Amino acid sequence: MFIPSMILKQLYTNGSLTNIDSAIKFSIKNRLKDSKLTEIKSISINGNKIPLENISLDLGNKTTIQATSISKSNSVDFPLKKTLDIIVISDKLDVGKHEIEISVIANPFGKLKFSVDDSIVDTKANVIRIPRSDDDYCKEIIKERQDFIEKETGAKLEHIRNYSLDPNTLKGNIENFGGVAQIPIGFAGPITVNGEHAKGDFLVPLATTEGTLVASYNRGIKVLNLCGGVTCSVIGDAMQRAPVFEFENARNARDFVKWVQENLKKISEEAESTSSIAKLQYIDPFLANKFAFLRFNYSTGDAAGQNMVGRATFSACSWILDNYKGIQHFYLESNFATDKKASQINIMRTRGKRVVAEAVLKRDILIQHMRVEPESLAHHGSIANVGSFLSGANNNGAHSPNAITAMFIATGQDVANVSESSAGLVYTELTKEKDLYISITIPSLIIATYGGGTGLATQRECLDMLGCIGKGKVNKLAEIIAGVVLAGEVSLASAISSSDWVSSHEEYGRNR
Amino acid sequence: MFIPSMILKQLYTNGSLTNIDSAIKFSIKNRLKDSKLTEIKSISINGNKIPLENISLDLGNKTTIQATSISKSNSVDFPLKKTLDIIVISDKLDVGKHEIEISVIANPFGKLKFSVDDSIVDTKANVIRIPRSDDDYCKEIIKERQDFIEKETGAKLEHIRNYSLDPNTLKGNIENFGGVAQIPIGFAGPITVNGEHAKGDFLVPLATTEGTLVASYNRGIKVLNLCGGVTCSVIGDAMQRAPVFEFENARNARDFVKWVQENLKKISEEAESTSSIAKLQYIDPFLANKFAFLRFNYSTGDAAGQNMVGRATFSACSWILDNYKGIQHFYLESNFATDKKASQINIMRTRGKRVVAEAVLKRDILIQHMRVEPESLAHHGSIANVGSFLSGANNNGAHSPNAITAMFIATGQDVANVSESSAGLVYTELTKEKDLYISITIPSLIIATYGGGTGLATQRECLDMLGCIGKGKVNKLAEIIAGVVLAGEVSLASAISSSDWVSSHEEYGRNR
Amino acid sequence: MFIPSMILKQLYTNGSLTNIDSAIKFSIKNRLKDSKLTEIKSISINGNKIPLENISLDLGNKTTIQATSISKSNSVDFPLKKTLDIIVISDKLDVGKHEIEISVIANPFGKLKFSVDDSIVDTKANVIRIPRSDDDYCKEIIKERQDFIEKETGAKLEHIRNYSLDPNTLKGNIENFGGVAQIPIGFAGPITVNGEHAKGDFLVPLATTEGTLVASYNRGIKVLNLCGGVTCSVIGDAMQRAPVFEFENARNARDFVKWVQENLKKISEEAESTSSIAKLQYIDPFLANKFAFLRFNYSTGDAAGQNMVGRATFSACSWILDNYKGIQHFYLESNFATDKKASQINIMRTRGKRVVAEAVLKRDILIQHMRVEPESLAHHGSIANVGSFLSGANNNGAHSPNAITAMFIATGQDVANVSESSAGLVYTELTKEKDLYISITIPSLIIATYGGGTGLATQRECLDMLGCIGKGKVNKLAEIIAGVVLAGEVSLASAISSSDWVSSHEEYGRNR
Amino acid sequence: MFIPSMILKQLYTNGSLTNIDSAIKFSIKNRLKDSKLTEIKSISINGNKIPLENISLDLGNKTTIQATSISKSNSVDFPLKKTLDIIVISDKLDVGKHEIEISVIANPFGKLKFSVDDSIVDTKANVIRIPRSDDDYCKEIIKERQDFIEKETGAKLEHIRNYSLDPNTLKGNIENFGGVAQIPIGFAGPITVNGEHAKGDFLVPLATTEGTLVASYNRGIKVLNLCGGVTCSVIGDAMQRAPVFEFENARNARDFVKWVQENLKKISEEAESTSSIAKLQYIDPFLANKFAFLRFNYSTGDAAGQNMVGRATFSACSWILDNYKGIQHFYLESNFATDKKASQINIMRTRGKRVVAEAVLKRDILIQHMRVEPESLAHHGSIANVGSFLSGANNNGAHSPNAITAMFIATGQDVANVSESSAGLVYTELTKEKDLYISITIPSLIIATYGGGTGLATQRECLDMLGCIGKGKVNKLAEIIAGVVLAGEVSLASAISSSDWVSSHEEYGRNR
Repeated sequence: MFIPSMILKQLYTNGSLTNIDSAIKFSIKNRLKDSKLTEIKSISINGNKIPLENISLDLGNKTTIQATSISKSNSVDFPLKKTLDIIVISDKLDVGKHEIEISVIANPFGKLKFSVDDSIVDTKANVIRIPRSDDDYCKEIIKERQDFIEKETGAKLEHIRNYSLDPNTLKGNIENFGGVAQIPIGFAGPITVNGEHAKGDFLVPLATTEGTLVASYNRGIKVLNLCGGVTCSVIGDAMQRAPVFEFENARNARDFVKWVQENLKKISEEAESTSSIAKLQYIDPFLANKFAFLRFNYSTGDAAGQNMVGRATFSACSWILDNYKGIQHFYLESNFATDKKASQINIMRTRGKRVVAEAVLKRDILIQHMRVEPESLAHHGSIANVGSFLSGANNNGAHSPNAITAMFIATGQDVANVSESSAGLVYTELTKEKDLYISITIPSLIIATYGGGTGLATQRECLDMLGCIGKGKVNKLAEIIAGVVLAGEVSLASAISSSDWVSSHEEYGRNR
Repeated sequence: MFIPSMILKQLYTNGSLTNIDSAIKFSIKNRLKDSKLTEIKSISINGNKIPLENISLDLGNKTTIQATSISKSNSVDFPLKKTLDIIVISDKLDVGKHEIEISVIANPFGKLKFSVDDSIVDTKANVIRIPRSDDDYCKEIIKERQDFIEKETGAKLEHIRNYSLDPNTLKGNIENFGGVAQIPIGFAGPITVNGEHAKGDFLVPLATTEGTLVASYNRGIKVLNLCGGVTCSVIGDAMQRAPVFEFENARNARDFVKWVQENLKKISEEAESTSSIAKLQYIDPFLANKFAFLRFNYSTGDAAGQNMVGRATFSACSWILDNYKGIQHFYLESNFATDKKASQINIMRTRGKRVVAEAVLKRDILIQHMRVEPESLAHHGSIANVGSFLSGANNNGAHSPNAITAMFIATGQDVANVSESSAGLVYTELTKEKDLYISITIPSLIIATYGGGTGLATQRECLDMLGCIGKGKVNKLAEIIAGVVLAGEVSLASAISSSDWVSSHEEYGRNR
Repeated sequence: MFIPSMILKQLYTNGSLTNIDSAIKFSIKNRLKDSKLTEIKSISINGNKIPLENISLDLGNKTTIQATSISKSNSVDFPLKKTLDIIVISDKLDVGKHEIEISVIANPFGKLKFSVDDSIVDTKANVIRIPRSDDDYCKEIIKERQDFIEKETGAKLEHIRNYSLDPNTLKGNIENFGGVAQIPIGFAGPITVNGEHAKGDFLVPLATTEGTLVASYNRGIKVLNLCGGVTCSVIGDAMQRAPVFEFENARNARDFVKWVQENLKKISEEAESTSSIAKLQYIDPFLANKFAFLRFNYSTGDAAGQNMVGRATFSACSWILDNYKGIQHFYLESNFATDKKASQINIMRTRGKRVVAEAVLKRDILIQHMRVEPESLAHHGSIANVGSFLSGANNNGAHSPNAITAMFIATGQDVANVSESSAGLVYTELTKEKDLYISITIPSLIIATYGGGTGLATQRECLDMLGCIGKGKVNKLAEIIAGVVLAGEVSLASAISSSDWVSSHEEYGRNR
Repeated sequence: MFIPSMILKQLYTNGSLTNIDSAIKFSIKNRLKDSKLTEIKSISINGNKIPLENISLDLGNKTTIQATSISKSNSVDFPLKKTLDIIVISDKLDVGKHEIEISVIANPFGKLKFSVDDSIVDTKANVIRIPRSDDDYCKEIIKERQDFIEKETGAKLEHIRNYSLDPNTLKGNIENFGGVAQIPIGFAGPITVNGEHAKGDFLVPLATTEGTLVASYNRGIKVLNLCGGVTCSVIGDAMQRAPVFEFENARNARDFVKWVQENLKKISEEAESTSSIAKLQYIDPFLANKFAFLRFNYSTGDAAGQNMVGRATFSACSWILDNYKGIQHFYLESNFATDKKASQINIMRTRGKRVVAEAVLKRDILIQHMRVEPESLAHHGSIANVGSFLSGANNNGAHSPNAITAMFIATGQDVANVSESSAGLVYTELTKEKDLYISITIPSLIIATYGGGTGLATQRECLDMLGCIGKGKVNKLAEIIAGVVLAGEVSLASAISSSDWVSSHEEYGRNR
């Protein structure tokens, strides 16, 4: 998912300052809690107080109310997420920045006062524009956009126009919609998964354009199945947002963290007030120089949860900002989340699901089906560890992102999270019976069975194929993905290891 | 792309040992060079020499030739990639492993001798099987697979069945094809790119299911355009394969590397003999313990090139193995490539394209359009550096993988390469005029305009939209992607920075 | 400090199995708690039970007691750390491994039963031996060793023999003592430190052989003093030991961690029972594959505490091992501590002290004394960040380990901890007044004012010079070191930045 | 070693601008090459040209020469490192910055012109000063400093005053000398080293205050000796300086790197002109954003070489700056060296010596002497790899910095280089005979047998003990250190592994 800028902007304002006829329109949006406006106390523009008589509120549906008419007994509903347009009779404002101060009384907040800089923008730039309309997902505008692209670029959009999904389902998923990418799906499996959530045999959809990928996973699946299937377990689960607070000095930052720890209960309540799903597990504080980084860790149900935890953390931080003196700067994100990034902290402390797939590969089956001995796989694993250490890689395995990406595309995940999800930790060990224990930990697998692209047409069918539709299915999906990933590790590691033909080469080599 | 196991298996054999009636079939495949068989000298199974009279070759098209009939004047064509089936009249072999020795004379190789272990496999495992057929991309088998999936899983494949691409184009792209994922495409731009290869305004297809993504990039594009566009440059280009050679001790590994450096010309010739495109740039040697890692760096034209460099490196290593004594083990890959992995070496030394996007953001435009001052963006950048350092992230920017992934899906890239491509290095600086210089280096952007999924139906249309079809377009694509990425950095960083509202909050805050 | 092997060996045995005349001697050592032996139940060697009559205990001071005489009323004192020698009349044992089983009743433990493999060693190897004696720190043996070294190596030990420290103070600090290294000490300062623990001006001893080091720090100190001194704060404090527990599978490892968290109080008690100083702050659990890593974090008073936390963690783990079923392997250390290593976890989560030094450098003073403008220092800092990111360095500053090492040698620290202590995080920022805020975080500074080498002759004098002798002085020392480190950053960064003479070079360059 | 700021300041000037009576003194220093001044063309102060008659040169030894008297036939010798004081008759300059321009003709340079800002400093700050004198290493001033410290701090410097070294040998090693730290030395070994440079048995001096360290290394040495000694090899050698060049944009930086590669021969000549020892091996270029980082790699003979390569690189860069247009900023160091830092690039590409120690540990000897089976050591090694991967450590071994630090202190190395030298890579493997192959790579061991502290009193004796005095001994020292390090790995890993007593504990545990 993607951090929506709306939660990153100033609370209660969305700043659409515009000239309309002989008046000015300005909007405020409620981003915190349901409330009621009981009084408009004052509004100033560039320091000039506007007479209350010149102020009115546009309540939508062609209803307006005079500022002077608002009172406790005639309050204006201002529910969460509602935007109110304020109309001020005034001269037109020049292009450029203007300062608006607004003071109101709202229930249950009491007196509120904001000061906001906003601009009248000169909008003649960017002459070529992609067509848009109020109903931006209707047939006509989509066709207009497609035709526009064809005309502007000379490309023919024959296949992109071909789709069966209903564009109206795409609100909240994409803007300027103009068709679909057709990504081929190949089927693999069934793979036998011995999970806590996924139990049984699963046919797996892999959306990819890379030849041999499906075949390679199928080879690995066969070996896993012959060895009794793959054991999968979700061993961690957390989604993060990591704001930073700047202080005058290091000492103040340290003292702030102590205060945060003492006020954890209240902070948690504020965070959790924004959603019925997000639960704050714990806050990891990190101190450096004059900064306090707070890494909020949440559980987010069946959703991946990046937006959810963004809102929750913003709410918690608003409370903190209101209740702690001495914060000099605050940013909702500090590159400590670490969203869309491979990082050591994700490897250590989980982002999304932390999931392990394990199997004991029977010696005979490895030799018969993969032409490789367990010792050889283990030996290559040891050398790959050396390679990973020297190269500074986030994965000592072979290619876990291949399965992860193909299943992400198929099932409607946020595919950019392959960044985090690419990390992997393979461990192999010869058993006393000379079989091979092999396992992979995926420490930051970011997935959802709800929200994002999971409800779209083909994506939902793929989730259905895996039995992952409905409440409480996200861990099941994690286990299946991990199982498929391990199949691929077995397959590719075997292929690499079976090329270790030096001795036979020396003995029977060419040119003798 | 994906390492095809074929090149990782033993040279000249593909090991399909099977019992057929009263004979045994065994296949050999030419993986090196065009050649001609001029004599079958001998074949032994489990040490028992087979009378030449009992041996024949199945040349395909119902033609066979007796081993005794092969001679210099009656040679058998054996071009590169051709598989020959050898039929040996014999008793059936038991389930399990068997050793086959084969000795032939081939032109231009001379006498060749191989010893191979292969197995007769008991194939009763895995009772449920996904339907396949000889023509695995025809309508019937695709439908059979779809019906099978529906029956086995209970899921309805209504939308997955809907596609306009021609399945016959998918050979080499996917196995067990059963339909497509429909990924919505939104259009952004046009973005003004001042590249060396991309010059002008480009409309950009973004395939994603993440709401606000297209809108956010569009916001950034608008700012870049108003500031004169984005300057993009490809500053590096290399694709790698990294074999490892094991020796008795560290000293031998070190001496081997010296020998490699002295024989670079010959090694280069062997590597480049496998393709007219791949050019070996240099070999980076890394020594540790008793191992010598050789990281081969190639240029690969318009292809991403992972397969190409795999074949080239395998060929080079075959020559090395034939010409250097004392190698105890050899693996074609060592986790030093580092394919499908985020790694420090990729950041340092480039994988795929190393591309930079740069812009000077005008103070006024930032303030008017993004409501943020250059100083604030620079300040947040400094703090994000601290966050990245502490968290060990591979990217000190905001979210470059969002654009990369959406464009990868749209244009037929190997999306799993988001693993490497996720790295990014943002640098900001206030100019003397108090504008903001901002740039991002993407050190390992792995892309192609040829091969992989780039030729498929919708993918090709998207490349067409960007003017990236035809020879020599891969750097153009790199520049456009980098430009879009920078737009997203500007957009999200502004959103985060404009939330730095502490002082106004303190002054005018709630509850007073 | 150094992990003493004693705590890593098997509990209650030190395994000195030896043949003496017609008997066998075997020792047991109490490593847990004061106790009393009230009965020897049985002893078997290689499965053969020894008659109790043939067993006696050597209590030291030429006193022995028959096993048969031991009883509740005639118990044998067995305090913590005491070693008891058990004498068994028996034939001599062959060279090689033997198994000894011993069963006793001890108060307050109840019945204890051990099985131990021990070996009779053939001790003829290593014919040349460094001389040792019972009183290994007396004059005579030291001279014997020195003479031995001179004779064996031909080197003259003229200066090494010159020392004023009392060798008897070295027990617990060094073995095979033979003289001293004379490391020159230069004085720097006084530096004005505005700490919470260190307040005032401090003259600083730097033990080094690197020319210009003392002078460079002095230059930096002068600048800091002119700007009002350096503000130093300890913002974190923890010492770790990180055992690992291996299970049958990942799921069991995960469940174990839950159990640990539920039993934290008891585990904490066990850990803290071993010392009056070590306090368990928290346990960081990390799961991967089938392993549970527990990173124990302690506060350790004025000691660095590595040994202390090793003992405490061992005690806690012993309780865990006794009370949790299903642990397959256990190691007291797992490379997660991470002792004597530079690591991301140390940077993130503190090892030893986390300490920050801060200053605002006045523009005028920088220009006059360092010939550099604040902007130039800030600019070089930004570029050094890029260099650090690309090179994967654990420090974005200039050379903090120089001061740290020189002060470690002078004040008796474990100098090998420079490994961890080398990490550093510099942050610079131009103030509104165009001065330069600069700070450095040292996230893992491992120091002591008690224990280790801090009590030795010159080392104690250096600590005395800093006013760091006596209880509760370790944070004071941390602050002073951090202050000196920042002085060096200012000095070297200025020197590098003042070389940024390109423009003047271009204008007035040579050869025109 | 330490970057001396002298080479970082502006060429040919050391900026000691001072008022003397009715004249001004200004100094220039030759930092490049022996030369002769054949004409003073002009000198201006703050833009005002000084009449040549008012200018004279102080040649030292009370000799002066008028500027007007200097000519080709009456040239002034200006050898490398010589400082000339220029006296200008003029009014006193105010406190603050002044600009001096000087134009001369010098042989072999031709016409040289410099412009320098320098300051008249107000020197009343820092009232308490450590005593210094012209002969700063004589008895009297040392005593004065010691007494000063005692008086100011109240500490008694009884032992610090005790030393046998000759303070006059310390010029170039330390400033403000005031005594020595006495670091106890313990002897270990002899250790049998099978090196290419070190062959035979070596008694090893370890300077440490950490109890059990010497004993533990001795235990490991015994095992190595019983197994035939330790095989050591130096497999890499390079010392770096990494300047950075900033350009207008990324493209220019890329083009600059091409130019550098084309002019490598000339750059190399300039670099090597500064020393007879330093040889430029290769330049590693790294591009990011608008920066070109050039990592110069040198061999430096028996010296560690940090200063030597600083000078060489500065000379090379001076030539580059004179011959390439468009460089906007230049810094001699960019945090890419990476001096005094643990870094991935040091691990990958060597800093100092890259050295490997290897041994095959016999099964019986391990069991008899260390009470551990090879399998157990290998198993713990595998788990430690997991721990290292998760924690982001620069060393997957146990404690290599312990030996390195103790030998660094004893033999006069720059101990702060423990930062780089702390990296290590342990690899273990069971042999077919069930013995244990174990090796450690130390990728960045920074040592010298010449220069720095290696010539001081006790330090030289310790080098003598190891047979490492004289030309060409630095690799011998590297091999011995590596051998001792491996002994410590064997010793501590055995201790940890032999604590893996879970199964016996479960069987025979307490409280049953």
